[in-house]
Amino acid sequence: KQPVDVAEYLFRRLHEVGVRSVHGLPGDYNLVALDYIPKAGLNWVGNVNELNAGYAADGYARIKGISALVTTFGVGELSAINAVAGAFSEYVPIVHIVGTPSTISQADGQLLHHTLGNGDFNVFSNMSRSVSCVVSLLNDPHMAATLIDNAIRECYIQSRPVYLALPTDMVQKKIEGERLKTPIDLKFPPNNEEKEDYVVDVVLKYLHAAKNPVVLVDACAIRHRVLNEVHQLVEKSGMPVFVTPMGKGAINETLPNYGGVYAGDGSNDGVRERVESSDLVLSIGAIKSDFNTAGFSYRVSQLSTIDFHSTYTRVKFSEYPNVRMNGVLQKVIAKMGRLNIEDGPKPTNKVPSAEEESSSETITQAWFWPTMGQWLQPKDIVITETGTANFGIWETRFPADVTAVSQVLWGSIGYATGSCQGVALAAKEMGIKRTILFTGDGSFQLTAQEVSTMIRQKLNPIIFVICNEGYTIERFIHGMDATYNDVQEWKYKDLVAVFGGEEGKTARTYQVKTKKEVETLFKDEEFATAPFLQFVELYMPKEDAPRALKLTAEASARTNAEK
Amino acid sequence: KQPVDVAEYLFRRLHEVGVRSVHGLPGDYNLVALDYIPKAGLNWVGNVNELNAGYAADGYARIKGISALVTTFGVGELSAINAVAGAFSEYVPIVHIVGTPSTISQADGQLLHHTLGNGDFNVFSNMSRSVSCVVSLLNDPHMAATLIDNAIRECYIQSRPVYLALPTDMVQKKIEGERLKTPIDLKFPPNNEEKEDYVVDVVLKYLHAAKNPVVLVDACAIRHRVLNEVHQLVEKSGMPVFVTPMGKGAINETLPNYGGVYAGDGSNDGVRERVESSDLVLSIGAIKSDFNTAGFSYRVSQLSTIDFHSTYTRVKFSEYPNVRMNGVLQKVIAKMGRLNIEDGPKPTNKVPSAEEESSSETITQAWFWPTMGQWLQPKDIVITETGTANFGIWETRFPADVTAVSQVLWGSIGYATGSCQGVALAAKEMGIKRTILFTGDGSFQLTAQEVSTMIRQKLNPIIFVICNEGYTIERFIHGMDATYNDVQEWKYKDLVAVFGGEEGKTARTYQVKTKKEVETLFKDEEFATAPFLQFVELYMPKEDAPRALKLTAEASARTNAEK
Ligand SMILES: Cc1ncc(C[n+]2csc(CCOP(=O)(O)OP(=O)(O)O)c2C)c(N)n1
Ligand SMILES: Cc1ncc(C[n+]2csc(CCOP(=O)(O)OP(=O)(O)O)c2C)c(N)n1
Ligand SMILES: [Mg+2]
Ligand SMILES: [Mg+2]
Repeated sequence: KQPVDVAEYLFRRLHEVGVRSVHGLPGDYNLVALDYIPKAGLNWVGNVNELNAGYAADGYARIKGISALVTTFGVGELSAINAVAGAFSEYVPIVHIVGTPSTISQADGQLLHHTLGNGDFNVFSNMSRSVSCVVSLLNDPHMAATLIDNAIRECYIQSRPVYLALPTDMVQKKIEGERLKTPIDLKFPPNNEEKEDYVVDVVLKYLHAAKNPVVLVDACAIRHRVLNEVHQLVEKSGMPVFVTPMGKGAINETLPNYGGVYAGDGSNDGVRERVESSDLVLSIGAIKSDFNTAGFSYRVSQLSTIDFHSTYTRVKFSEYPNVRMNGVLQKVIAKMGRLNIEDGPKPTNKVPSAEEESSSETITQAWFWPTMGQWLQPKDIVITETGTANFGIWETRFPADVTAVSQVLWGSIGYATGSCQGVALAAKEMGIKRTILFTGDGSFQLTAQEVSTMIRQKLNPIIFVICNEGYTIERFIHGMDATYNDVQEWKYKDLVAVFGGEEGKTARTYQVKTKKEVETLFKDEEFATAPFLQFVELYMPKEDAPRALKLTAEASARTNAEK
Repeated sequence: KQPVDVAEYLFRRLHEVGVRSVHGLPGDYNLVALDYIPKAGLNWVGNVNELNAGYAADGYARIKGISALVTTFGVGELSAINAVAGAFSEYVPIVHIVGTPSTISQADGQLLHHTLGNGDFNVFSNMSRSVSCVVSLLNDPHMAATLIDNAIRECYIQSRPVYLALPTDMVQKKIEGERLKTPIDLKFPPNNEEKEDYVVDVVLKYLHAAKNPVVLVDACAIRHRVLNEVHQLVEKSGMPVFVTPMGKGAINETLPNYGGVYAGDGSNDGVRERVESSDLVLSIGAIKSDFNTAGFSYRVSQLSTIDFHSTYTRVKFSEYPNVRMNGVLQKVIAKMGRLNIEDGPKPTNKVPSAEEESSSETITQAWFWPTMGQWLQPKDIVITETGTANFGIWETRFPADVTAVSQVLWGSIGYATGSCQGVALAAKEMGIKRTILFTGDGSFQLTAQEVSTMIRQKLNPIIFVICNEGYTIERFIHGMDATYNDVQEWKYKDLVAVFGGEEGKTARTYQVKTKKEVETLFKDEEFATAPFLQFVELYMPKEDAPRALKLTAEASARTNAEK
């Protein structure tokens, strides 16, 4: 009764779930579909390459809740697959739409460009199966709407990428548009009530018995959308609350009961002692990976742990499959009453005293991260890259409502710069003022050209490139002086002009080499509030790294060498 | 008796088959292995990202016969997989070595960085199976040497990528080095002699009966190493010889019997008529893909065709599996005697008369490509990118011994710039003077930072970026004025300084906007012979494309829309 084209249906659904910008690159198998993007009220980003587009879609999804990525068959989708795998690994919902040859060309096995020359048109979608929670080939108009709705729903609920293949001849096929009137249901399926109540009772029993319980918040609390419940739990109970490195940003760090970052031996001062001596750790959304635990130096007994997850709850060693944390936590909060509370440490942004006393003007890692924390503002979004930045940020205490973005499990360098484009765009759409990126010189080189897209889309991120002559994190793992850990020296900030930024008009660049220069920059009101992209070359020593990185690197080297 | 470490064995074997530089990026799972590269007499390139490294390895292999690429588990290998797929599609031999977590970590299912968090350590190597002719996991020192030798041999013989997973704990395991004294056998397995003689007789029968036979040389003649035989056939017989777009560079274009490019409707002047009226086409190594045939406008009857391939020979409709072309052609050449010869057209680098007469100073596609042909020198290597360049080059007649590199079947943009790094490095190693790249502004943006590696490795390519305000090739397929076919305007040549090139000392840049400026540049002796990287911004109109591109684009749009 209300015929719409398949592509129109798809993009209207994406708009409905909150997507406002679509990332990706054109290719002849998706060109006609791209015509539908503005018609659906969406903005086409036009990234510089597909890997960057994938990273940007990941960043956008982390801020807006979901994102869309369009690539072309074979060449485009495979260029993006590392970014999609990262989103799968770290639970980021991206709807990846791949323009494919027409169903007729596929049936004929035509020897088309972007094929392996063997007539196999499913080889690329098959590769995506292991990094997508749904793969659907929209080869039949009768199935298209159902497959699209299902993919978008699963993408959101499972918080992982889905893959939609859209053949050129399907783009304009008419399907019934009536069902667009019923929004896609994005609610989590509720737990079985009896089971949930049972688990809640068990949790409460241990919680009431505990003498000094703490809460430990990790990545999946963010990615599986339980932060509201966590905030209530923490504020209402007053329990000391800690975050893992991947959980950073989940908790308002100005709360009196916020205790700092827990990561085994790499923890903030006093945190390890407090967490590991607790008789009950409420662990929410844990991902106990090597880089999230300073090399598996996590020492909390399972006998004093309750694990809350999106697909199960576990109390000590008793597992309760299919009991999602959201419902459980809501009831626990409602019923918990007063608990035994023993205070935890109070993190600050104080520079360590050795640094404080030093008269050297060199910008050290130990000095920079707490100092930078004093400069941050509420609501800032802070992106850090694998490298010294991802470990340095453990030493930065955030103002309220700061969001942190990083890729600690997947750890693909270049991610942060690509992601920054998507984050800054999402921030702009949501009226969030500042997006701040910290990346390494080595990492930046992989995806540097995405700065061009930021300028093109008139975004205003503040980009810090840590210039320390190469791959410092790798040096601490192996090859401190090896030339393979060096990179070509670039004039990093001159890229801004190359990409079309006009100094002082549409962009501004800086170079800071001393503590004093950093302090001056951090006092600069224009720098703090500029409406356009800003780019800072931040010089730090080659052989300097945050303490937590040194510990993690040693552990990695040991694990790699294990016999 | 002569124990060597697994990594030493591997790199010594690569050296033995002709590899002198290893492309790739470090990562903690491959760092220890990288220490063995200089010890084996190899140069570590240190690319800027893995996709570029893969493209560069592809370019290097096209010139040197084989190449090596080192990446790290998950993040590195998946970033490169599009390049590897391209090499698989286009028959380019790359030994892809992936540093993986130790066998112990894998057996324990540790939650390591660069995993999907699900304990599956085979998911990435499995993805590579569909784009590699061999995938070997070097998990056992007893098998390592055999697996390495086999992979290198298959890589070379099948002329396709192979994948070797090297766990961190295997790198330094001792294995017997005695077998290094016996080189890997890289000879093609000979055909069954009786069968081969039979096929030769059939071929000779038709060849002697033919009134106006021609030879048509395509990509697989180059990639499967039959050019010596083809040259002899062509020179000895005097038959008119043509190349397809993907076969460009296979034939000495100064030969009197060289006739030009055949690609159906997109053929050079007079070529279509001559080829399609021939009563016998000896088709060598054909890949009849859409972009290699101007949209399947190839019109040669199978009834007047003999197909020579690496895995079979086909005479009209009679197929002879497992009869490789090399042996057959050698015997045909020896036995063919005198043939009936009817001349073909004689291609030139004359500018079309309409262009010749035009007083406009605008650099048009029709004017540029033949003009450029007059500037080329013997032995040049010319790389062209998917876009106007890949079609424009059909109108360029080469001096003797020019090698052409392009990716017409896979067609991944950004390829040409990455590839140029590997090609220029191979050229340097082989004493070849000039590597010349023609890429589009849109394509260049995807992989621009590989220019940094060229500067770092002190290479001297001449890079032309065709500045025409975006994706002209796509405009001709769909969306002539669509904003998704625009790109951000860059100050392209300023990148050279950003990447460390010093104007006039270690690099030189140019901008040409008129025919006169092109002519001046082409007369400039310094430009023709500079020992360092040179970069030219070449301005052409947005809506201008080579004739062959227009035809192909129309055909593509038709195929995409087919109902
Ligand atoms: C795509 C990808 N390639 C390679 C690696 C291995 N790797 C991890 S960190 C790193 C170096 C990062 O160097 P830089 O960004 O300069 O950081 P810093 O010097 O601050 O440590 C490398 C090469 C990776 N994680 N991802
Ligand atoms: C990795 C990849 N992404 C997208 C495409 C689709 N595509 C093919 S050609 C092209 C535009 C090339 O533009 P440019 O390099 O400027 O060439 P020209 O303007 O000379 O045609 C695009 C986007 C592709 N082939 N490969
Ligand atoms: Mg660095
Ligand atoms: Mg262009």
